[in-house]
Order: sequence, then structure tokens, then C-alpha cells
Amino acid sequence: MTAQTSSATTRATCEAFDRADPIRAYRDRFRLPEGVIYLDGNSLGALPKATADRVKKVLDVEWGEHLVDGWLKDNWMGLSEVLGDKIAKLIGADAGEVIVVDTTSINVHKVIAAAMLMRPDRRTLLTDKGNFPTDVYMAQGLVEFLGRQHRIKMVEEDEVAESIDEDTAAVFCTQINYKTGRLHDMAKITKAAHAKGALAIWDLAHTAGCVPIELNKIEADFAVGCGYKYLNGGPGAPAFVFAPKRHHDKVRQPLTGWLGHTNPFEFGLDYKPAQGIRQFRASSPPILGIVAMEAGIDDMIEFGIGNVRAKSLALTSLFMKLVEERLLKHGFGIATPKETERRGSQVALTHKDGWAIMQALKARKVIGDFREPNIVRFGFAAPYVRFADVWDAVENLVQVMEKEEWKKPEFQNKKWVT
Amino acid sequence: MTAQTSSATTRATCEAFDRADPIRAYRDRFRLPEGVIYLDGNSLGALPKATADRVKKVLDVEWGEHLVDGWLKDNWMGLSEVLGDKIAKLIGADAGEVIVVDTTSINVHKVIAAAMLMRPDRRTLLTDKGNFPTDVYMAQGLVEFLGRQHRIKMVEEDEVAESIDEDTAAVFCTQINYKTGRLHDMAKITKAAHAKGALAIWDLAHTAGCVPIELNKIEADFAVGCGYKYLNGGPGAPAFVFAPKRHHDKVRQPLTGWLGHTNPFEFGLDYKPAQGIRQFRASSPPILGIVAMEAGIDDMIEFGIGNVRAKSLALTSLFMKLVEERLLKHGFGIATPKETERRGSQVALTHKDGWAIMQALKARKVIGDFREPNIVRFGFAAPYVRFADVWDAVENLVQVMEKEEWKKPEFQNKKWVT
Repeated sequence: MTAQTSSATTRATCEAFDRADPIRAYRDRFRLPEGVIYLDGNSLGALPKATADRVKKVLDVEWGEHLVDGWLKDNWMGLSEVLGDKIAKLIGADAGEVIVVDTTSINVHKVIAAAMLMRPDRRTLLTDKGNFPTDVYMAQGLVEFLGRQHRIKMVEEDEVAESIDEDTAAVFCTQINYKTGRLHDMAKITKAAHAKGALAIWDLAHTAGCVPIELNKIEADFAVGCGYKYLNGGPGAPAFVFAPKRHHDKVRQPLTGWLGHTNPFEFGLDYKPAQGIRQFRASSPPILGIVAMEAGIDDMIEFGIGNVRAKSLALTSLFMKLVEERLLKHGFGIATPKETERRGSQVALTHKDGWAIMQALKARKVIGDFREPNIVRFGFAAPYVRFADVWDAVENLVQVMEKEEWKKPEFQNKKWVT
Repeated sequence: MTAQTSSATTRATCEAFDRADPIRAYRDRFRLPEGVIYLDGNSLGALPKATADRVKKVLDVEWGEHLVDGWLKDNWMGLSEVLGDKIAKLIGADAGEVIVVDTTSINVHKVIAAAMLMRPDRRTLLTDKGNFPTDVYMAQGLVEFLGRQHRIKMVEEDEVAESIDEDTAAVFCTQINYKTGRLHDMAKITKAAHAKGALAIWDLAHTAGCVPIELNKIEADFAVGCGYKYLNGGPGAPAFVFAPKRHHDKVRQPLTGWLGHTNPFEFGLDYKPAQGIRQFRASSPPILGIVAMEAGIDDMIEFGIGNVRAKSLALTSLFMKLVEERLLKHGFGIATPKETERRGSQVALTHKDGWAIMQALKARKVIGDFREPNIVRFGFAAPYVRFADVWDAVENLVQVMEKEEWKKPEFQNKKWVT
């Protein structure tokens, strides 16, 4: 796997990048299968070694020995807020503004509904066509349920800011496009929203744990995010929701469960919302899922989100350079913006035979994924992806194309899900 | 702990009951702390030994080795339905009618909203004052969000059936009262609802895994339930939702996330609901939480819900008898119905000093809990509670009272949560 090309970059160059990488040692925090190049941390992050131990302790000691007393003794009841405060550090929020709860989709419902209640006279919910479908679907479900008195306006990705008008209750976008990795200018769109009296809601699914942002500095109104991508929280990990303190007094949302009550253990029959971010919680926290998130978040804080971003951009830049040098001739295009300030931590290639190519590449133990209609997607989770991995991934992809491995019959049938 | 009383029942009698118990061997399936008498399985079920191994496998092999391919290779994507089909067997539903998803509270939102949409001209949501607060709160949040065009009518527990009228969209009750253990006649109330054209929604939080019911036989319209009580799914385990096949074509609910879409991996921007129960799913399933539920549910199917119910009633009857013989003189009352057909699997005692008494009892390693204002609550999870445990619990409670242990200062301060 030390193939040389005529280009200036060689595997030796990549190895030198790795030796110079200030966060290279953190790769050892993760359990990674032998011989696999894992470029799908944007879909499911890798397992932090400490997570396995922590979850086993919950089973063996907390649930197994403490039983129901774990709620107090092991602070199960407080974990949603403990982890929320930690995530806050990664996204420029303050303690008490983030809580780990439910799923991204459910949290989208809460914050869009909350925005509707804060802008009762406005009827437009604005988003872009690059938003992740679940965000759009959740808004559609809400609007439908409310009797279609609102409309969802869907515009091109680069037309969001200028599409906000006086009827816009809220603009809701995912900062980083799940297919292409294109990154929105959150500050600009949030400012444009506020200029028209609208609210700005951000989905940070592909942001948290890979791109440094400052929610409070840009005065974002609400945000949601995902635990299982760059935060390495495990498959189907709980999500998070952000609401800034300036909204806490007036905000309301419709999913009013008992643990969002100001005094749940009174067991009264009238809902009274808790103060602060806790009103976004409805139910008992999912302890196994939440506990499994903690090590990944702690690690990320220690790695330094600035370090992670710097390396991530170097990785994606290297990948795009190698693709340009070695893969364009095989029919690939690059759908991800070349400007570093306009992309997240993934690179999307286009190819008409993308599905089969990705299957052939996975057979070579290089793991990325495919998205309709023609996107061959690679995520570069900086804490555990090496520069040499980037070289090897491209080399394998070259082999797949040159040897026409992707034409094998077993790679032709689409089978979801990855 | 072999104290004798003047009554006919002795510890030896209880030990004889244990020897004759046909499901006594199943206790060994659970990990139970040494020396603890655990009578709080109605709050958090005990840890099935197989669960610990199963979760460790997810960490070490599935997430750790298979990474994102676990969604297919380990059928993560299908677990919500696999477990739903298993739970269906415990509640008299058919395969394809139950799915494990979200939390009880979120599922309450879905089914009440669905019922509202199926009865658009009706404005009353009927419940009883014995319902668990979160069910009521979720309905309140929904009604409030919809601009209070609906009303929530709350009646006494024994007045539900006759309070249903032509304006009732749905009656929603928890079958078994979380405080007293009082059990609703689901067949009667469901029939009364249908007679008036209303729908019947059942919360099975304290039913699933301890009382045999027949959702389809009684033609229940929707149901929700909890994974962490008698199903032994772990702290904050995912919940489940039931919708019968006869409603699948017409039902809609507002939490329309991407995994409730008929073809999620098309990633289109228009929500089209999946066929069947899957439309009640919004998001990626929480794998650690779902996997942790499977052994407990498999075990329960093997134990036989009829066997579990028979033993549970014997345990609660024995407990009530011993309380009558030995504890009434210490100021205790019994809030749980004496008729077996009117109670679930718990017994609620009343005592004005209930909080302190329960703390003193817990110091003796007998674990129950307290609910406002004066309920001392004991749950009898038949698969792992022994008749001798019942004797010992009462004996310890007698000691707490006779020695006035509950008067110690450390037992006076209320501290939630248990």
C-alpha cells in the first residue's frame, strides 16, 4: 500500500503529516477494528474505549447493585444536564442552556413549536433544500397537525438569508449538509433572521464535535444536535437541545412530560414548566444511552475543538487534492465546497456508479457510505483518522476503479441501511 | 428473621409457598444484590443476567467491530419491531402492531394526537384523577399548543365509563394506578367508549409484564407502555406504542420523523408515512437501550404471563394479610383494593410518617418507595420476589415500628428521586 503516483504527494508525505499531528495520540482513545479505514464517523462515531468500561459499570454496579437508588446515588437523574453542560462547551453555549434528551427529530419538534409560539402572528417556516429530511418532515408533521395554517418555504441553500421576510416565524437549517458537507454561515443567517424579527434554529448534527461554533455570540435562538456522529455517543445515542437563557422565561413547547415539570415529585395534575432548559425534558433519561455519551464528550473537550477542526480541514483538503490528482479521470466529481470556511468534516464525491463503487471499497475495508442519487461520502473524524488513512483510502479507490472491482455482481444490489 | 406471631401464617408457611412456586427457579435469571429484598420492580425492574452480556456484546462486537454496518449486520434497524412483536405477545396484540420507540410520554403525545385526528369534531379528552401525571401533562401540552379548543375532563377513577359522552374524542387512562395499584376494567371502559363513538387509549406502564391483557380482544384503540418496570428493561429504557391493524390505514400522528417515512433512504423532502406501526417511529432507535430490553422480554414470555400474574396475586394477597395481622396497629392503612381482579402487582400502604418509615426500612435493605402524600409503596415482581421475602419485609417493617427506628433524624429529610 505504498504505491507512488506522479503527483507531489506520496504516502510518505502523509506519514510525515501524521508524525507532525499534535492530536495523533488521541486515536488510541478509540477502539477501532484492525485493518479498517473508518471514514463514516459522520454517520456513526467510533467507540471510545472508556465508554465500554463506563457502560459495564452501569450494568454491574449501578443498575445491578444499586437498583432504583441509582437515580440518586449515581446521579442518573442529573445526567441529562451534566452532559448538556459539557456539550455547551463545544458549541459556544453556557451552562444551563443545553440538555441531553430524546432524539434530534423530537427536539426539532420542540424548538419549531416553541418558535411558532414566540411568533404567533407569522405563518412561514423557512428552510433550505439541503436540510436533512427529518427536520423538514418534523416541520411538515407539525404544520399538518395544526391544520396547515402555516407554510414551509423551502429555498436553495444559498438563498436562505435573503428569503427571510416579515412573515417568517423561524428559519431552520442544518449547518452542514449531510450529503455534500457544505457549511452555512450561521452568523449571517441568524443576523438576517433577527433583522426581520424571525428566529433562527440550527441543527448541529454534523457540527457538534467537529466545527467550533459560538451559539451565544451569534445569538442563535434554538439548536438541536445529534449524539452519535462526531460526539461518538453510540448507535442511536440521545440528542441534545439548546435554548439560550434570554428565552428561558418566555419559551414554551408542547411535549410537556413529568420531568419537565417544575416539581415532578409532587405528582400534581397541572403541568407547570420547570425553570430553564429542564422544561425541554419530558421523561426519565435513557441511562445506558446517556452514560455511553460521556466519555466521547469528555474526550472531545480534551482534544480541543479548535485542534480537531484544524486537523479535519487538513484531512479533507488532502483527500480532495488526492482525488483531483488520481480519481477525476475515473469519472468522479467533487460535490463539497473547496473553500475551507464553506465545508464541514466530510467530502462527497459524485459518481454515476457510486453505490457499487462504495460496496467494492467497503470490501477492501475502507468504510464510507452512499447517498442518493450519486453521492459517495467520506467523513473525516479528526480524533481517529490519520493522514495515511486518507492516502490509503484514495489508493484503494483507485484500485477499485482500475481493476473494475465495482462491476462484480455482488456489489450491484442496493440494500439499506448503512 | 424467623420471628413467630400469633397468626396462622409463619415464615415456614411462606417458605413452603416458595417450594411450591412453579416459577421459583426463574429468580436465578436476575442479578439481585446480596441481602436486599427488592420490592420496587414497579419503579425499576431488576437486571436480567443475560442483559449484561448482551449489552457488552453490542459494545465489544457490534459497535466496536462492525461500526456503522451494525445497522444491517446486527439488525439494529429492525430491533424496534422485533421487540415490539415480542411485547405484543404479552399484551394480546398481533405482530406488526407494537413498536419499541421513544418514551412513554412522547408516545402518549402521538396516540392522543392520533385520536384527535380520528375524531376531529369532538373536543373532550377524558381521563381520571388516578392517571399518572405525565399522561395528563402531555395532553395538557397538546391542548394548550392547539389553542385550547379541546378540554381535558378529569373524573374520579370509578366514574370513567359513565363520563364518556358524544363530545369525547378519546378516553385515556393508565390501567393500573401508580400509587394504589387499583386496576381499571379495560374491557368495560373501552366498550363504553365505543358505544359513544369515542376511542380508548391505555397506558400499560404498570401492566406490561405483570397482568395478562388482551388488547385486540377488547378492541383497544391505542396503547403505550414502559420498558423499565415489569419488563426489566433498565433505567430509562425505551417505551412502546400499540396501534391495531384496523387503524393503520387511516391513522396519522404529528411526530413525523425520517424513520417513520415509507422510504427513509430515498431522502426525499416530502413526508410520506410508512405503512403499519412503523409510522410511529421518528428517529434512529437507541440501540444500547433497546438491546438491553430483549432478555427481560424474552424471559417474561418464557415465564408465562399467566404464571407471573398468579404468583403476583398470591404475593400481594399474602402481603396484605400479613399487614392486616401485624401492622394495622402501627397506624398503617391499605390503599390497594382487596379484590384480586381490581389490583395490579403492588400494594400501597398509607401512613402519616410514610417517608421516614420507608427510609428506615431501606436502611434494613428492604427496598420500596414513597409517594406523596402518605403512600408507602411495595411492588411484587413475581419472577424474582419470594414469599419468604414478603414475610421478611413485613417483619422488618414491624421492627422499624416497634423500635421506632423511623424517628431517627437521618430519615426525616425528603430527598428525591427514588
